[in-house]
Amino acid sequence: MDSSKKINLPIIFLISTLTAPLSWAAANQQDSLKPRINSKSERSLNYDWPIIKVGTGSYEEGPTGVTVFHFDRKVNVAVDVRGGGPGTVNAPYMDLGYDMAELDTVVFAGGSWYGLEATTAVATALKDDGLRDGDAFSLTPNIAMSVGSIIFDFGARRLNEIYPDKRLAQASYRAAKTGSFPLGPHGAGRSAVSGGLFGCNAFSGQGGAYREIGDIKIAAFTVVNSLGAIVDRKGKIAACYQGEGWPEKIDIAELLAKFPDNLTDWGDDQQQASSKNTTISLIVTNQKMSQAELKRLATQVHTSMGRGIQPFTTIFDGDVLYAVSTAELEENTMSSAVLGTVASEVMWDAILSSVPEQPKHAVANNRLSLNKKHLNKLTGEYTFSEFAQITISRDSSKLYAQATGLRDVFAIGRTTATELIPVSKNVFMVPGRYPLTLSFETTDELIINPGKWQQTARR
Amino acid sequence: MDSSKKINLPIIFLISTLTAPLSWAAANQQDSLKPRINSKSERSLNYDWPIIKVGTGSYEEGPTGVTVFHFDRKVNVAVDVRGGGPGTVNAPYMDLGYDMAELDTVVFAGGSWYGLEATTAVATALKDDGLRDGDAFSLTPNIAMSVGSIIFDFGARRLNEIYPDKRLAQASYRAAKTGSFPLGPHGAGRSAVSGGLFGCNAFSGQGGAYREIGDIKIAAFTVVNSLGAIVDRKGKIAACYQGEGWPEKIDIAELLAKFPDNLTDWGDDQQQASSKNTTISLIVTNQKMSQAELKRLATQVHTSMGRGIQPFTTIFDGDVLYAVSTAELEENTMSSAVLGTVASEVMWDAILSSVPEQPKHAVANNRLSLNKKHLNKLTGEYTFSEFAQITISRDSSKLYAQATGLRDVFAIGRTTATELIPVSKNVFMVPGRYPLTLSFETTDELIINPGKWQQTARR
Amino acid sequence: MDSSKKINLPIIFLISTLTAPLSWAAANQQDSLKPRINSKSERSLNYDWPIIKVGTGSYEEGPTGVTVFHFDRKVNVAVDVRGGGPGTVNAPYMDLGYDMAELDTVVFAGGSWYGLEATTAVATALKDDGLRDGDAFSLTPNIAMSVGSIIFDFGARRLNEIYPDKRLAQASYRAAKTGSFPLGPHGAGRSAVSGGLFGCNAFSGQGGAYREIGDIKIAAFTVVNSLGAIVDRKGKIAACYQGEGWPEKIDIAELLAKFPDNLTDWGDDQQQASSKNTTISLIVTNQKMSQAELKRLATQVHTSMGRGIQPFTTIFDGDVLYAVSTAELEENTMSSAVLGTVASEVMWDAILSSVPEQPKHAVANNRLSLNKKHLNKLTGEYTFSEFAQITISRDSSKLYAQATGLRDVFAIGRTTATELIPVSKNVFMVPGRYPLTLSFETTDELIINPGKWQQTARR
Amino acid sequence: MDSSKKINLPIIFLISTLTAPLSWAAANQQDSLKPRINSKSERSLNYDWPIIKVGTGSYEEGPTGVTVFHFDRKVNVAVDVRGGGPGTVNAPYMDLGYDMAELDTVVFAGGSWYGLEATTAVATALKDDGLRDGDAFSLTPNIAMSVGSIIFDFGARRLNEIYPDKRLAQASYRAAKTGSFPLGPHGAGRSAVSGGLFGCNAFSGQGGAYREIGDIKIAAFTVVNSLGAIVDRKGKIAACYQGEGWPEKIDIAELLAKFPDNLTDWGDDQQQASSKNTTISLIVTNQKMSQAELKRLATQVHTSMGRGIQPFTTIFDGDVLYAVSTAELEENTMSSAVLGTVASEVMWDAILSSVPEQPKHAVANNRLSLNKKHLNKLTGEYTFSEFAQITISRDSSKLYAQATGLRDVFAIGRTTATELIPVSKNVFMVPGRYPLTLSFETTDELIINPGKWQQTARR
Repeated sequence: MDSSKKINLPIIFLISTLTAPLSWAAANQQDSLKPRINSKSERSLNYDWPIIKVGTGSYEEGPTGVTVFHFDRKVNVAVDVRGGGPGTVNAPYMDLGYDMAELDTVVFAGGSWYGLEATTAVATALKDDGLRDGDAFSLTPNIAMSVGSIIFDFGARRLNEIYPDKRLAQASYRAAKTGSFPLGPHGAGRSAVSGGLFGCNAFSGQGGAYREIGDIKIAAFTVVNSLGAIVDRKGKIAACYQGEGWPEKIDIAELLAKFPDNLTDWGDDQQQASSKNTTISLIVTNQKMSQAELKRLATQVHTSMGRGIQPFTTIFDGDVLYAVSTAELEENTMSSAVLGTVASEVMWDAILSSVPEQPKHAVANNRLSLNKKHLNKLTGEYTFSEFAQITISRDSSKLYAQATGLRDVFAIGRTTATELIPVSKNVFMVPGRYPLTLSFETTDELIINPGKWQQTARR
Repeated sequence: MDSSKKINLPIIFLISTLTAPLSWAAANQQDSLKPRINSKSERSLNYDWPIIKVGTGSYEEGPTGVTVFHFDRKVNVAVDVRGGGPGTVNAPYMDLGYDMAELDTVVFAGGSWYGLEATTAVATALKDDGLRDGDAFSLTPNIAMSVGSIIFDFGARRLNEIYPDKRLAQASYRAAKTGSFPLGPHGAGRSAVSGGLFGCNAFSGQGGAYREIGDIKIAAFTVVNSLGAIVDRKGKIAACYQGEGWPEKIDIAELLAKFPDNLTDWGDDQQQASSKNTTISLIVTNQKMSQAELKRLATQVHTSMGRGIQPFTTIFDGDVLYAVSTAELEENTMSSAVLGTVASEVMWDAILSSVPEQPKHAVANNRLSLNKKHLNKLTGEYTFSEFAQITISRDSSKLYAQATGLRDVFAIGRTTATELIPVSKNVFMVPGRYPLTLSFETTDELIINPGKWQQTARR
Repeated sequence: MDSSKKINLPIIFLISTLTAPLSWAAANQQDSLKPRINSKSERSLNYDWPIIKVGTGSYEEGPTGVTVFHFDRKVNVAVDVRGGGPGTVNAPYMDLGYDMAELDTVVFAGGSWYGLEATTAVATALKDDGLRDGDAFSLTPNIAMSVGSIIFDFGARRLNEIYPDKRLAQASYRAAKTGSFPLGPHGAGRSAVSGGLFGCNAFSGQGGAYREIGDIKIAAFTVVNSLGAIVDRKGKIAACYQGEGWPEKIDIAELLAKFPDNLTDWGDDQQQASSKNTTISLIVTNQKMSQAELKRLATQVHTSMGRGIQPFTTIFDGDVLYAVSTAELEENTMSSAVLGTVASEVMWDAILSSVPEQPKHAVANNRLSLNKKHLNKLTGEYTFSEFAQITISRDSSKLYAQATGLRDVFAIGRTTATELIPVSKNVFMVPGRYPLTLSFETTDELIINPGKWQQTARR
Repeated sequence: MDSSKKINLPIIFLISTLTAPLSWAAANQQDSLKPRINSKSERSLNYDWPIIKVGTGSYEEGPTGVTVFHFDRKVNVAVDVRGGGPGTVNAPYMDLGYDMAELDTVVFAGGSWYGLEATTAVATALKDDGLRDGDAFSLTPNIAMSVGSIIFDFGARRLNEIYPDKRLAQASYRAAKTGSFPLGPHGAGRSAVSGGLFGCNAFSGQGGAYREIGDIKIAAFTVVNSLGAIVDRKGKIAACYQGEGWPEKIDIAELLAKFPDNLTDWGDDQQQASSKNTTISLIVTNQKMSQAELKRLATQVHTSMGRGIQPFTTIFDGDVLYAVSTAELEENTMSSAVLGTVASEVMWDAILSSVPEQPKHAVANNRLSLNKKHLNKLTGEYTFSEFAQITISRDSSKLYAQATGLRDVFAIGRTTATELIPVSKNVFMVPGRYPLTLSFETTDELIINPGKWQQTARR
């Protein structure tokens, strides 16, 4: 098959053919997905604080997910909305300053605004399960209050638009338990990335940290999905697919000093990955605080995150932070400023803990010579989703890939065919800044970047 | 059966027995409800504005419902949150002032915070149906933006806590059509009431009005569920179950002059009905407006509603108003203040149109003498919901009712038995400020206040 | 002198000649003004509440003024900013929700943003007088907190731009005393008007009302300077220079029903008077309230003012309301909603009390024939301020006036000469919707509309 | 004189005697102060941007001062209020999002809330000088808009409560010129300190930085008066009076890792210096930005300052940042996020530039033996202000100091006499964490810490 012909397929045609069957398809797709709840994590934060229960869930086909924080009793909450594209539920209510413990759950999810369904779904689950009813605003209100925010994990980072939905959120909520919080690409942080401004595009995830100072307990949780890069206390970027000529561990100061010369060119689909972000966070203390103090705590800790994520709260981030006081400790032993300073360090630890091991570049095997017959068997159209598809073709003894759906497939574009370099008999790679490995499975599937964030197509 | 013994049932027992089976029951109940979509209305607003599509849905068992406004293309939106207990989705985003048409739908629902599920469900329906995808924030963003608010329609006004859910909201959205808007107890206004502060407790609902001035179009929609009373342009209260010695059509000025002497005693369950409210509104114009102007329009119109609803935006209301510009009319022919003044009148019309005909008091038939055998057939326990139940007993030739669930059943309390006065063979009434009719059906059901807002119990 | 020639004076020339000497002139003018402090009032509100002290001051040459509310001890305050052009000092601080009594004074002033100097001046006076020092934020903070807002009283309503300054504000603060509050054109309300949207342009002023309910005290103060008209509880407009064919006491409903057909044509200088407004208000209670409740009180009362002023909080108003709790009454006997409902009625009373008796139209004396020699003595240039000047000329036995400064002088325009109709030997009038009387004084002065709001020019 | 007796003076007596003459004294004091305008600076930022004019003024007796930024034409402004104790003028107006160039000046001042007089005074100066008039809100509004904020520079850092007033602000505004901005303890930063949380209490001041990228210009100005410490890009604290055993240049990470163990004990007067702070900042660009973008720029840059000041925006800070677009460059060549990232680096440079050389500890001369007759001549009462006074006494051949006013005088307390160690014949010191030098002048004056921040007492 001559790949060059593919280009001639008019875009308009692709759209029209795809639009028709698209209706209802997405919903059906969502309904057929299998929730993966509290999946095992390589790394976890262990904490001793029974009042905080955590449940995580994901649709691995996305991958995308949800993280539910369920407090074992009503707690006080304040919110600080800072970003340029925030997604929230009930934010104005939290700003009214009532000194009343009303919050049940904080829900973080992927899926951009669609993921807000997770927040409302947990509220209705609390009602459906009989834990909460419709008794609002009384002295001991029993109506469920669920707040939450979302990250943008669509765009070029994955080849589908699966989102966390009511079913996934309610299952995650019902599986919530205390003591352990999975770190890295889990729950809402399942497909989080960071550093797009510099072209880092490193995977991040959800982070958590916990500290006790005397009787005071502080827990910090965050889903880092930021335009900015994650930075450690030495000023080094924690994870980044380096640009040409960059050292392995680069100083953020160095990077910023050269900025904007080293700004990623936000052309085409690359922009998708870079320009949409959001970091959502939760800080919890057991010290009783007035609503005004709790709001100040939220403000201070949120600002402090500008150290661990640089830049932070840009117009392309939708950053939101929730501050919760469980008031288990009635005495106000630490002032808001001091508590906020400690909590900011705990939050920085949480940010750093969100970074998983990054997928490696596959190594090309130049000595490998594959016969045409074998290669022919790999050719054909592979479909990732309603908008992402690639066509594998052979020319002489080389294999080529070209995106034939509505969008590019990572570095495999729609206008020209991209040569695939063999790694092993059924595994190929495309050189570039970011790993791009294609593994042809015996099951007629094509997996891009096998592993934690793999994308699967069917022929 | 001696009704006085009933009192001795310890409350604690009732709670413990009810708590256990309550789990999951509510959800199952929700799943078994049958959506009623775009049900016929006695009164409707007809309007000629194709860009606005409206869908309404209800669970008649509540009754409670949802109203979806779906704009046929992306439009600009601003929000004004004023009340003391608002429920919102994505409110902070609307306040960022981006001059970008992003809104798809405004969703109003009953069910207090649980009803916010309706708002998020419509967003995911837009995605599932393929109308919107995950392309956020680009020059022509295609991600679905659904905002919305809720009213509190639980409490003493109905004997169950059914709420509008994802299923109901998505069905209503998918049935949305242009040209007609049902007035009164429909959609989100299905169980709205007004005037609790004065003990009016009149049913209200959703109202709408539409006006054209030259090329300019203005539509106003509102769900009036207010602590305050609805007031017409003559200063008369539009609907109210009068207190003792009140004239039929009472001046609000007169009522307020005597306030707080005429304040309803918010004891016990009565407080439930009185103290929780919310009016949610939408004003739409086709004139293009800057975001700052649109916000001013929202502010002005929302303030103006303090004339048609008195008092308004109290701590016990959660009032929210959305202002939408469809920008079909590019020219800015009317200043925001002038447009706002006209729009405020349209909104007042909408408020007034929300009032339905009120249920009448049944007339006791004192000459009616019912034999004991027949009365015996009516006795027994009738269950409205997990928390509302009454026991009918007979003493001599009189019938009595006593609430034996967790809550009172309107004026039928839990501490003493209430005598039922016969109206006809199978229909009884309880005298009082509010209509209270009990109709025993051949189907072993007991219907309280048969009609639009009836509550059904099963023996 | 032929007045028609006057027109030929190029505007540009007028500007250039006026600009040069203008520098520093205004300041010198301000410095030469004589404060008039606590001037006698025809009408006053008497109240028995020692904690509230009031001082008023004015520069009669404006006229413009300032009103200082000084609380005898630190009190709690919340603010509700609603209008489209508010002027405020320290508003964000008040929204932080600290439950701490910090407020000393609320200062209202004319002079648009320039009048904010009055607010800051009272804070420094408190320090200069040794009542407060620099001890901020401690458990018993002793730093002065002065907040305040301004009204726009420039534009076509007066022929100068004198503003309330530090000197006037500090003198007023130092003269503050309890028990009496002057009603009408006093203090900040010295040059307030209302109803510009309908062309009413009636003088208003400052209003006040006071009510006791058991131990609870409520006081309301407001400076009504609104685009909308002042409306009483019968729906009648309280003050308005009627348009052609209007009844004397017109229903607001009637006026609004015809709107925008009856909209004042906002041409030229008339727009000055109509389009810039602001109502600033203060509600005080002695009941202790939490900061959240106090904010709700501010919200509810501010919304309720949309009944007494129609329309209210438009883009051309800068409406701000302050709510103060003196906490003299520790017990929380009234809920915020009930207190807010009563307070809203008190505020409506305050609004209505702001309306003074309006200047009457002078009656032309058609039989009066004045000799040319006398008329000649009246001709010449009369200067009101750096931008307002009229030239009186004679043609045959008639007197003419033409504005020869930078702006029109009420209905006396700059493009043509306006005939003056004799009332008496030295008094003339110009027919029209608004009173326009010119009184030539023996002192070489020309007074327009002699009386409370007179404007004085010197030849 | 026996210093131990001093202690017995009842505090109550001190207060009562001091209260009486205090009235009006402060004002008189303010009136007698001599403004020092645009005083020479050791270090200055030079910038080539004619539209920005800067004027600084100080009362050296404080010392305290004011900095006025005057834009040569109306510009757009947005504000980000983050701190727990902000002082602002007209902040809500800036948040209304009007796309209109209205701002004239940004005014920063010392003096806590009293210093807000500086902001309003510059507005009236613009009017008094004829540069602006009362024409508000028209298409080309000509009313002066002056916004501004203040820092807390009272408390233990100086021995008086002189504040920047109208006179000083207007003189500074009138002396404003372009091209140069004094760095360090000038203008509003005259008595700024930083790092109180860790007991650093280092002097800071005002900082500025300027950068051009192609045609884009960015200027950053800040007055750093923060609870947190100033941190450079290597993570080192820029200025700090070290605690015991601290290295000279200490890592903030190290300090924070030990926090709160190394928290300053906020006892007594020390708390004064530590617990009240505020950093106020201004970022200016010549690129045209929409109001929404400008607000995002303010947000991003303000957050980024949490790197250069750690911690930042605590409850004890009143941090405010203004963002201005002069719109000289019509094209929107940089996105808000990219511009914000660059601007954040410029702001960090500005923060670092605020740090002046710190006063050194005087070196005790132990071999120095002073005769009693000479020492006797130094004894007596020295008065700094209405509340600060020390009594010098001699015991044997040693000199002692004890605070005998209402407050401690730095480390010289009121309860016991402090030994003064001779440095030279008329110069003594007190050992401790902070420099404390006492220089007896021939003029009967006693100067504490002679130099830039000296405090002068008169006998």
